[in-house]
Amino acid sequence: MTTVDIKKIFENPKEFKNKKITVKGWISSSRGNKHIRFIIMNDGSSVQSLQVICKNRKGFNFSLLDQIHTGAAVEVKGIIILTPKAQQPFELEALSFKLLRDADLDFPIQKQGINLETLREIPHVRHRTNILRSTMLIRSTLAKEVHKYFDDNGYLYFNAPIITSNDGEGAGETFVVNDDNSKDPFFGTKKATLGVTGQLHAESYAIGFKKVYTFAPTFRAEHSNTKKHAAEFWMIEPEVAFYELKDVIKLADNMLKCVIKNTIKKHPAEFKYLQENVDSNLLERLNHFLKTKLSIIDYRDAISELAKVKEQFENKNIEFGLDLATEHERFISEKLFNGPVAVINFPKKFKAFYMHQNDDNETVAAFDLLVPGIGELIGGSQREVRYDKLLQRALEVGISQEELQWYLDLRRFGDSGSSGFGVGFERLVMYVTGIDNIRDVIPYPRTSGNIKM
Amino acid sequence: MTTVDIKKIFENPKEFKNKKITVKGWISSSRGNKHIRFIIMNDGSSVQSLQVICKNRKGFNFSLLDQIHTGAAVEVKGIIILTPKAQQPFELEALSFKLLRDADLDFPIQKQGINLETLREIPHVRHRTNILRSTMLIRSTLAKEVHKYFDDNGYLYFNAPIITSNDGEGAGETFVVNDDNSKDPFFGTKKATLGVTGQLHAESYAIGFKKVYTFAPTFRAEHSNTKKHAAEFWMIEPEVAFYELKDVIKLADNMLKCVIKNTIKKHPAEFKYLQENVDSNLLERLNHFLKTKLSIIDYRDAISELAKVKEQFENKNIEFGLDLATEHERFISEKLFNGPVAVINFPKKFKAFYMHQNDDNETVAAFDLLVPGIGELIGGSQREVRYDKLLQRALEVGISQEELQWYLDLRRFGDSGSSGFGVGFERLVMYVTGIDNIRDVIPYPRTSGNIKM
Repeated sequence: MTTVDIKKIFENPKEFKNKKITVKGWISSSRGNKHIRFIIMNDGSSVQSLQVICKNRKGFNFSLLDQIHTGAAVEVKGIIILTPKAQQPFELEALSFKLLRDADLDFPIQKQGINLETLREIPHVRHRTNILRSTMLIRSTLAKEVHKYFDDNGYLYFNAPIITSNDGEGAGETFVVNDDNSKDPFFGTKKATLGVTGQLHAESYAIGFKKVYTFAPTFRAEHSNTKKHAAEFWMIEPEVAFYELKDVIKLADNMLKCVIKNTIKKHPAEFKYLQENVDSNLLERLNHFLKTKLSIIDYRDAISELAKVKEQFENKNIEFGLDLATEHERFISEKLFNGPVAVINFPKKFKAFYMHQNDDNETVAAFDLLVPGIGELIGGSQREVRYDKLLQRALEVGISQEELQWYLDLRRFGDSGSSGFGVGFERLVMYVTGIDNIRDVIPYPRTSGNIKM
Repeated sequence: MTTVDIKKIFENPKEFKNKKITVKGWISSSRGNKHIRFIIMNDGSSVQSLQVICKNRKGFNFSLLDQIHTGAAVEVKGIIILTPKAQQPFELEALSFKLLRDADLDFPIQKQGINLETLREIPHVRHRTNILRSTMLIRSTLAKEVHKYFDDNGYLYFNAPIITSNDGEGAGETFVVNDDNSKDPFFGTKKATLGVTGQLHAESYAIGFKKVYTFAPTFRAEHSNTKKHAAEFWMIEPEVAFYELKDVIKLADNMLKCVIKNTIKKHPAEFKYLQENVDSNLLERLNHFLKTKLSIIDYRDAISELAKVKEQFENKNIEFGLDLATEHERFISEKLFNGPVAVINFPKKFKAFYMHQNDDNETVAAFDLLVPGIGELIGGSQREVRYDKLLQRALEVGISQEELQWYLDLRRFGDSGSSGFGVGFERLVMYVTGIDNIRDVIPYPRTSGNIKM
């Protein structure tokens, strides 16, 4: 008799009606008396738990139930009984009950409702609460749906190097990598750092494979201690040859909507849980996003609009050159458009060197995709394909030509231009789950001063 | 008129018969005369290239074709003509031809057949050869099929931390991570290293989610300069609660066969290319693997068998305690079994501390899955679930209890045992493509002294 995932029973209880099955999982509660026990167990396949009924009858080791603690691993064989009139649509009437491994009394997850901050101290067990369980199940599905979306659309999954001698953004906030055991530097004279983006390398593969994407960890040695920043996070970066700015904005919008729609469909119970316990507006917000056409606004127009209402912002200095803060982004997406919006053509001075320089000589063909409730979810651009302009801008921001020559050379070897964007995966998980701290959507978060386990 | 991927036409030429289409890609050759030109172009969707026919007639910019070089990016609109009697099943008769971006004369990929060693010097363009193109297309599909396999079987995709304060294997060959810009250590007093495995963290999630897997980059600061070792490589690590050794061996066998079978099905052209140009035995070898039942042999029995023929090995010291080398592994899988084989129950002294200790007090419940032509492809084990035995072994190999307490505590919190394994993803790609150097199956390889781009 093979073990059944509890999720499968919830998906189609009738299929299991009166069937004898085996389940394995962990106990989250037990109540009852010396005649009957109601045991709630979960196996991680769903946030929904199975109710097991144990009756004190001959041949059933009923006294064992008194010795079992919350968190214990058990195996139950029994029969699924449909209970259409009860709160739960079915229950498992136990024929046999096996304690595989008990949990000590100091198991930290004795009940639901522990606050998220406390749970951050115990990342090795916090996923055994319903809130983390829901979040991590959705996270996993989002990741798989991302791979599925790009596969369905003919993209090559490209693995950029993690350890690199290039600093893609020219941002400087990088981690340095050294060999622990040797006096000789492992990679010779070059400084090795952890990649902040896979984009430059992905561009090289877009030239030849046309459509590629990365999905990998990236790193920033940012000391800022905010809800949105982590030192280690996963990033999705598609890069498409022959695409211009408008094409890649459309890709970003399509991808987001497809991935979110499919994820919602696969997790009715988890979204119900988060809606009831984290963000009562969650599904309304996501459904509004799904059905709302993406708007596009030029950065200059956005600045004009923001300037009209500048009194309401903390940063009131609204003029060309402003790097939009979250308060501005949220105003644009929530108040101006009440939906997703791409702001395009940003001033070049605060954008990366590789972005296509517009004819006005002041802006670049970049976009930020903003969504209500969050602000920026995606940033991307059309890449500068003109060798001289690219080199000039790289030198302006202090990148040496020697380091960048391989990348510059792509432009001499049939690179007719490509476009791409980056999605911080954890930010996407936050948007989709309503969880508002990045530390709670990644299993073992790494932030300044924090490297638990 | 949307752009068509060349692969789509090869998959079903009849569907495109006499249809007007647009293709975008890169030129790999051009021949002909002043009346007609045959241009071969590839767009990276397949190793197969499209033959484009250009006729010198009114309204067609024929003279342009004289100025275009190998590697140039072009856009062609034309009509698909089926040519059942010709070598290629169809061709594109060009109606218009647009040069999107030419390539300079020093574009390194002027023809096929450049040797792999030379290509390693130019990782930013080498994928524009047929051999790297085939390899990277298969690599991408293998990765997606891995995700698909685990998704179909209800696994949670788990992202272990990359930067860690734990050294999972106790191997010591780790990279150390430091903040570049700050005198203060980013993570406080703890030494931060790049993970060599996600397993310990994955175990914590298996307890609660039952079935999980990682698929992420891992790092070893190994100075050894072999064809099989890289400093940075991707690893797949499933971990399943309630599984014992025999269960996880079955999982490894199933997963490999499913993933390889589906990948072969999706890449007939790429496997044909590799068969003809890299390994004439490739498909026979893979098909033999697919149809051969996995054998299982105890390490002690394997040693007895090896001892009988010890004269043929470089290392003739065949006795209990020998850590099998590739020559031994290949003998076992090729000569003893002529097929895939799992060697089980290895001496504990050269295996990791977390493996289940067998009753003989000498061996652990580990397995290595060996395949003909390669040797070890997968290594895994049942984990030690007994707190005291786990702690004792950790101390024996020099791991401090303090560092490991969180992991030890899993055993007190309902961990009834789990099993898992690790597949080096690049080694899998090597096995499936027949490419025999790890530097040629990963886009930008990192090895001792080598960090190009």
